[in-house]
Amino acid sequence: MSFINNWLRADIQALDAYHIQPAENLLKLDAMESPFSLTDGLEDKYLAHLSSADLRRYPSPDASELQQNLRKLMQIPAELDMLLGNGSDELIQLLCLACASGDTVLSLEPSFVMYKMIAKFTHLNYQSVDLNADFELDLPLMLAAIKTHKPKLIFIAYPNNPTGNAFDRSAIEKIITSSAALVVLDEAYYAYADDSFLADIQKYPNLLLLRTVSKIGLAGLRLGLLIAEKGTIKQLDKLRLPYNIGGLTQAAANFLLQENSTIATNAKIIIRQRGELSKALAAIDGLMVYPSQANFILFKAPKADELFAYLRQNKVLIKNLSAAPKLTNCLRVTIGNSEQNRQFISIVEGFYG
Amino acid sequence: MSFINNWLRADIQALDAYHIQPAENLLKLDAMESPFSLTDGLEDKYLAHLSSADLRRYPSPDASELQQNLRKLMQIPAELDMLLGNGSDELIQLLCLACASGDTVLSLEPSFVMYKMIAKFTHLNYQSVDLNADFELDLPLMLAAIKTHKPKLIFIAYPNNPTGNAFDRSAIEKIITSSAALVVLDEAYYAYADDSFLADIQKYPNLLLLRTVSKIGLAGLRLGLLIAEKGTIKQLDKLRLPYNIGGLTQAAANFLLQENSTIATNAKIIIRQRGELSKALAAIDGLMVYPSQANFILFKAPKADELFAYLRQNKVLIKNLSAAPKLTNCLRVTIGNSEQNRQFISIVEGFYG
Repeated sequence: MSFINNWLRADIQALDAYHIQPAENLLKLDAMESPFSLTDGLEDKYLAHLSSADLRRYPSPDASELQQNLRKLMQIPAELDMLLGNGSDELIQLLCLACASGDTVLSLEPSFVMYKMIAKFTHLNYQSVDLNADFELDLPLMLAAIKTHKPKLIFIAYPNNPTGNAFDRSAIEKIITSSAALVVLDEAYYAYADDSFLADIQKYPNLLLLRTVSKIGLAGLRLGLLIAEKGTIKQLDKLRLPYNIGGLTQAAANFLLQENSTIATNAKIIIRQRGELSKALAAIDGLMVYPSQANFILFKAPKADELFAYLRQNKVLIKNLSAAPKLTNCLRVTIGNSEQNRQFISIVEGFYG
Repeated sequence: MSFINNWLRADIQALDAYHIQPAENLLKLDAMESPFSLTDGLEDKYLAHLSSADLRRYPSPDASELQQNLRKLMQIPAELDMLLGNGSDELIQLLCLACASGDTVLSLEPSFVMYKMIAKFTHLNYQSVDLNADFELDLPLMLAAIKTHKPKLIFIAYPNNPTGNAFDRSAIEKIITSSAALVVLDEAYYAYADDSFLADIQKYPNLLLLRTVSKIGLAGLRLGLLIAEKGTIKQLDKLRLPYNIGGLTQAAANFLLQENSTIATNAKIIIRQRGELSKALAAIDGLMVYPSQANFILFKAPKADELFAYLRQNKVLIKNLSAAPKLTNCLRVTIGNSEQNRQFISIVEGFYG
C-alpha cells in the first residue's frame, strides 16, 4: 500500500476524479458557454488593457475596480457588498468552510453537482431533497427536511442546473423564512431568467446570492461573486485567501464587463434562440422538452444514449445525464448561435427521422 | 445581533481580516516581487499569445501545456507529477482539506503565516515549534513535538520566510523519516536558494514540494504548484476544484515561462544584489543582518519602527515584522534592482547617519 493510500481520508480516495469530456474538434454545446465573444471588434483595446497588468506585482487584493464594474453590470445596490472567487466553486467552498465541521448542507436533487462534492471536501454532512417528477420544488418535503436536518447552509440554484427551470418564488421565500440556515441562491443563469432575488437580500438577512460571468461570455476567466449584506461580506471575507483573483483576470474583466449593452443584447438573442430550439425539439415525436430559464435546455429523448453518441459522431458534444438518478433518458444542450442550433437540431431530426 | 454574527463560527469572527499595506506611489520592497518584467522586449508576442485565449470557453481543466512548461522550467523529473493552484495558498488549503477534521498541522515559528491561518479555516489543530535564536531549526524540539502531537501535515518553508535562511538539510531529512506526516517543503524561493529537495521526492514517499511563480516575476498570475509522486498527485487531485486555473493565467504563463534563460539570469542578478545589499546593511553600526537564500533580507535594526516609518516617508515600503513574537526590531526588505537597492540603502544610511 502506497503512502498516500494510507494517509488520505478514505472518503476522498473513494471518489472518482471529476470527469470532463474530451471536446477536441467538437462543437461544444455541453457546458453552458456563450457563443458570443466579448472581444469582437475590441481586440486592440482589449489587448492594450491586458498589457497594462504588471505581472511582477501581486494583483489588487480586493479587486475594487472589478467590484465596481460588476456592480454596474449587475446593478447591485449600494447597500450590498460582494466577495469574488475563482469561479463560483471557490465561493461554494468558502461558504462550506464557514460552517463548523459536521454541519449539514441541504440542497435539491438533481442540481449542480459541486454542492455535494464540496460539502464532502469540507467535512460537512450533505442532505438533499428530491425535486418532483416535473423537477419542481416539493415545498412540504423541503420544509420537513429543514426540520429534520437543521441545515446550516442551503444551496438552491435559481434557475436550476441541469433542469433549467426556476422554482416557484413563494416556495423559496418560505424556505428562507422557515430556516435558520444561510440560504444561498445560485443565480449563475441570471442573464437568461425572468426573475432574481437580488432585490430581496435586504429583506432577508439569511439570504445570499452567487453569480458568475461564466455564462455571459467569460467562462475562461473563472470569476464568480457572492452578493450579500455588507456585514455578512465583511465576516465571510476573512476566509478568502489573499490576492485570490489573478491580475490578468482582473484586467480582462475590468475591460470586458463594461460592454453592458452587448452582454444584454447577447442574452436576448440566446433567449430567443432558446424559444426556437425548444419548439423545434418539441416538434420531434417522442421528445419531452422541459421549460428553461437558462441558456440550456433539458429534454427527455427515447434512446438518449444512442442520440448522444450519434451527435458526437457528427461532431456535436452535448451533456448526457441519463445515468443520473431521476434523469433517465435526459440530455442537456447549451443554446448556441443560430447556426450551431440549426446544426444540432438537424442531427437530432436525422437521428429520429 | 446581526444574522452573520449569530451564524458564523466564532473562531473566524474573532480573526482580524488579512491586512495588506497600502502601497500606492511607494517603491514596493515588501512582498518579494521581482523587479524584472518577463514581458520586456516580448510585448507583441506576449499579447498575441493572450489574444489566442478564447474567454468564451472554460479553460483547459488540467492545464497540461502549462504543466509541461513548468516541468521544463523547473526540471521536474518525468517520474513526478504536479497539481496547480491559484497561488500556493490554494494548494495549502487543498492539503489541509485532505486531512480529517481535527488533525494536527505542525509548522515552525516564525514562518509563512498562511499555514496557521488556513489550518484554522479548515478545522485543523495548528501547532508550532519555535526556531532557535538564530532562526535555525531546533531538531530535538521538533522531534519531540512530532512525538507529542502526531501531526498529519508538516509545513516547512525551505528557505524560510520571513527569516530567509534554509534549514539544515539533515535536520529536514530526519523530520521526514521520523514522522508519519505528509511533509510539505515550501520552496517558494527555490530560484534564489543553494539547495532543493526536488531530487529527494522519489526517496521519501511522504515528501511533497510546493513552488510558485510569484517570486520569479509573475506574482500577478497567482500560480502555484505542488510536486509529488504520481500516485500522490492522482489522489490529491480529487480535491482540486475543476477548471481552477483561469484561461488568461494559463496563456500568459505558457508564453512567459518559456523564458528559462531570462528567469535564470534574473535570479543570478538578485543573488548578487542580495550579497551587496547584505554587506551594505551589515556595515551600518548596530544592524544585524541574517543570512538569506531568498530574494529578501531579514535584519534587526535599532528603532526598527522608526526606520520603517522613515523609509515610508521617503517612499520606500518594506515589511515591518517587529510586532511579531521573536522578531522584535526585525524588518524584511525585498531585493530590488541595483537602483532600487541603492535608494533603499541610502535612506537607511541617512536614518542612522
